[in-house]
Amino acid sequence: MGEVSERERKIVVAVDEGEESLYALSWCLKNVIFENSKDTLILLYARPPRPIYTAMDGTGYLFSADIMATLDRYSYDVAEAVVEKAKRLCKHLNNVKVETRVESGDARDVICQMVEKLGADILVMGSHGYGPIKRAFIGSVSNHCAKSVKCPVLIVKKPKNSSHT
Amino acid sequence: MGEVSERERKIVVAVDEGEESLYALSWCLKNVIFENSKDTLILLYARPPRPIYTAMDGTGYLFSADIMATLDRYSYDVAEAVVEKAKRLCKHLNNVKVETRVESGDARDVICQMVEKLGADILVMGSHGYGPIKRAFIGSVSNHCAKSVKCPVLIVKKPKNSSHT
Repeated sequence: MGEVSERERKIVVAVDEGEESLYALSWCLKNVIFENSKDTLILLYARPPRPIYTAMDGTGYLFSADIMATLDRYSYDVAEAVVEKAKRLCKHLNNVKVETRVESGDARDVICQMVEKLGADILVMGSHGYGPIKRAFIGSVSNHCAKSVKCPVLIVKKPKNSSHT
Repeated sequence: MGEVSERERKIVVAVDEGEESLYALSWCLKNVIFENSKDTLILLYARPPRPIYTAMDGTGYLFSADIMATLDRYSYDVAEAVVEKAKRLCKHLNNVKVETRVESGDARDVICQMVEKLGADILVMGSHGYGPIKRAFIGSVSNHCAKSVKCPVLIVKKPKNSSHT
């Protein structure tokens, strides 16, 4: 472990509304993060892009500016809540730098682009990589990212009946 | 890291003839293994099952017992060479137990079954999970295992122009 503690690793953890991503974060904190290292932990949240909301309107009507603003506000609130919850799990880390990033866009694109941009040493994510609403796409985000990013990818599944704390 | 060093983790690393799996092992040694922990590292090699050799004979002729014995011998030699090479990468580990397993069968089945049987805490593998001969199945082994096993899966890609040492 000598080699590791001496260099700064950038660890990106993709977090979302689902419990699984918080479990993945907890697992990473216990098994990958070296407390006394110079590791930087980046908690990344991908905020769904607007077209997802407009697509909700299947009637041909357009949402009013008011409704759009409300939806945007809600989206920001969700992002903040997720990121805050994730940050709380990291509060025991003394030496590790913890950063948060909220980026708007499709989770697959956001995660792959940020991993590249930040020059991450490892990407950690739940096996779904999306909140419960998107469970239809099971595995598609983690699968896509595992194929696309150049750095090692750690995919964590939440065991049944386990808490992330 | 306190919690980790106190318990024994079982880390399964799938190794094969390809350079990538040795790179994955090296990466794991530097980034996941805690030297002073009670971690057990299990180097797992899946030896191709016999049907792969018999399938080489597309002519309708059967291989003689001699040829079969030679092929089996070759297969054992390859297994031993791979496992020995992997073990050498681990020789600096003082406290970590290093075990090797060679199991006959399709890599996907062997890896998933052993991870389950051993109660592994993490599975580490290259993104191909097969030697160069099977590159046609790119990603299929790691993808299959990431979906099937219950424990966290770390998929490591070998960067271009890098050595595993």
